[in-house]
Amino acid sequence: MTDPVFPRGVFCAALTPLDRDLNPNYAAFSAHCRYLIEEGCTGVALLGTTGEANSFSADERMRLLEAALAGGVAPSRLMPGTGVAAIPETVALTRHALSVGVTTVVLPPPFYYKGVSEDGLVAAYSRIIEGVGDDRLRVVLYHIPQMSGVPIPHGVIAALRERFPGLVTGIKDSSGDLAHMTALVERFPGFAVLAGADPLMLPLLEKGGAGAITATTNLCARDLRFVFDHHADLGKADAVAAAQSRVVATRERASRFAQMASLKALTAARTGDANWHRLRPPLMALTEAERAALLGADEALPRAS
Amino acid sequence: MTDPVFPRGVFCAALTPLDRDLNPNYAAFSAHCRYLIEEGCTGVALLGTTGEANSFSADERMRLLEAALAGGVAPSRLMPGTGVAAIPETVALTRHALSVGVTTVVLPPPFYYKGVSEDGLVAAYSRIIEGVGDDRLRVVLYHIPQMSGVPIPHGVIAALRERFPGLVTGIKDSSGDLAHMTALVERFPGFAVLAGADPLMLPLLEKGGAGAITATTNLCARDLRFVFDHHADLGKADAVAAAQSRVVATRERASRFAQMASLKALTAARTGDANWHRLRPPLMALTEAERAALLGADEALPRAS
Repeated sequence: MTDPVFPRGVFCAALTPLDRDLNPNYAAFSAHCRYLIEEGCTGVALLGTTGEANSFSADERMRLLEAALAGGVAPSRLMPGTGVAAIPETVALTRHALSVGVTTVVLPPPFYYKGVSEDGLVAAYSRIIEGVGDDRLRVVLYHIPQMSGVPIPHGVIAALRERFPGLVTGIKDSSGDLAHMTALVERFPGFAVLAGADPLMLPLLEKGGAGAITATTNLCARDLRFVFDHHADLGKADAVAAAQSRVVATRERASRFAQMASLKALTAARTGDANWHRLRPPLMALTEAERAALLGADEALPRAS
Repeated sequence: MTDPVFPRGVFCAALTPLDRDLNPNYAAFSAHCRYLIEEGCTGVALLGTTGEANSFSADERMRLLEAALAGGVAPSRLMPGTGVAAIPETVALTRHALSVGVTTVVLPPPFYYKGVSEDGLVAAYSRIIEGVGDDRLRVVLYHIPQMSGVPIPHGVIAALRERFPGLVTGIKDSSGDLAHMTALVERFPGFAVLAGADPLMLPLLEKGGAGAITATTNLCARDLRFVFDHHADLGKADAVAAAQSRVVATRERASRFAQMASLKALTAARTGDANWHRLRPPLMALTEAERAALLGADEALPRAS
């Protein structure tokens, strides 16, 4: 945890399976987290945007983190999102993570108010970190302006790293903009910049990035991990290129319709478990027609129910 | 409550005072709610954007609603915001309101995910309403796309009114776009369309609107109520125009710097109570220089502390 470039590797933004009443299926989630580690993920970044975390109550979020641990994943391999709109609740979720031995959390800024100042963002993150008040805490910032509506500027990162040295260890950059990620690497040595999109991990690694936290790794963790492990090995260039191609193809396949619903439909097909089809509103599962168009004839097509 | 155009009138989007630790000052909030009714507000729309509701925990929100009641405001005059990103927590906050006798709530859509479908929004609101499961419930939708990032299209309103007749009674339209408000009035007869900006209440009333929920009424409720009561009285046209001018001037004054911080500084000056200066991060109080520029020499200038 004191490695200045932790977190480093391939982290899966884990999907969350839902039962018929659209409540989390904790047993299926446990099994999925274990599967992701077996497939080669460095760790599981559960309870993010892809995990529908902000559609779940604090109680559901805590139970999901506990389910991941119950699935046999080591606390040091879990990196849950614990940031909500209200700081006291972010503090409570983060303290819960620490209470079960999980020390690195992914924190979006408070995301209701838009157009907030850099001073306001620094004050918000500081209030969270000081409210948690635990030296073990490590924070990965979460930059996803297209969803949060609140970008994290360089000035905020610089101020937080100065105020909390060694505590704010990295950033998940889900902007989809390689130039933005590269600028972060160049500006902040020793700061772990993680790509939020699978195809960008490879070029980001070449610039000095730390890896990726991505949604497609729910399906192709093994390939992305191969790219991570061997991207600098010229003797494996062909195999790396082939793995990277499969990753890109999987991502493109999952982007023909709504991405999260598509990833869930593909996971349902892989597991034969209809629990994977569902999303909690305002997100919606694929329609039957979309599912039929997405899945090949050779794949199981469990019906949503 | 069965009046098809309830809510109708002038509602204040109440500010929330904070103590030195940036926690709600419940006693000052009680007094403020009582003051707003004394100043002529039809009711108090507490715990909205202006009230910093989404910066507070569920516990703080429930205590603030209880503080408003403790201030002597009748439950039928309170219209709290109870909508957060996670549906189970929206259900819990709404049930709490009903448990203390408050039946009309203001509901933004779940606001984390952007670009959601109309079906997804209808499913989300339906899950909230059915989750609350109380026939007394009345819902005012909250359209504030510049903050929530999730507009409420006509199709969603039509579907909800059909699915829950008599329950979804109105909308707070904070788009700032009179044409958008007017289109809602024309499309949905008997549906209460409330302007989210003071200057637009008068033209909206002339189109058949139901009134306003506004932030500036923290300062000028008496004038806005006069406009509401007498806008159709030709014999009072000059007095209505004068009141409207004062409302517009107050709003412009509060918009020179950040609006919520300015309204708080002006309320601090009115009350002589420094608790009013503060905002919870990511929002920030005015700087000393801004406060000095905003407040006149004839006004008290309590120091923030």
